Amino acid sequence: VPDKEFQRLLGEIGVQVRTIRTSRGLSQEALAFDADIDRTYVSQIERARINPSLFVLHKIAKALGVSARVLLQVDRAE
Amino acid sequence: VPDKEFQRLLGEIGVQVRTIRTSRGLSQEALAFDADIDRTYVSQIERARINPSLFVLHKIAKALGVSARVLLQVDRAE
Repeated sequence: VPDKEFQRLLGEIGVQVRTIRTSRGLSQEALAFDADIDRTYVSQIERARINPSLFVLHKIAKALGVSARVLLQVDRAE
Repeated sequence: VPDKEFQRLLGEIGVQVRTIRTSRGLSQEALAFDADIDRTYVSQIERARINPSLFVLHKIAKALGVSARVLLQVDRAE
């Protein structure tokens, strides 16, 4: 079932991850290493290609120095 | 790897789901039906026993009439 709202949410999270990651001067590889996940996973999340688990979002957020909530709040990007 | 922050986040989401669900007068069964997920999944999320995917959180939020963001914002419960 296609779900436009979910795709928009995924897209916003992807942009948020990329925005904060680049503001930290981190490569996808460096973020993946810090978050202890596969690099391709970072790339897929930034391109809104996968449905991440909350734990993966939490690990990414932690590696970026923010809370998981921040990743879902595009209007509160740092 | 135990992760206290993640467990706290899961716990807060579980409380949030239960709070909004009961404020809507919905049983776990009714919410599960509306969200098109298994009832045991609702119970496990409310008890912080599983690591949900973002899509499942989105479907629950939609069935509750809120956005997925609201489920992560305990200070903004409706």
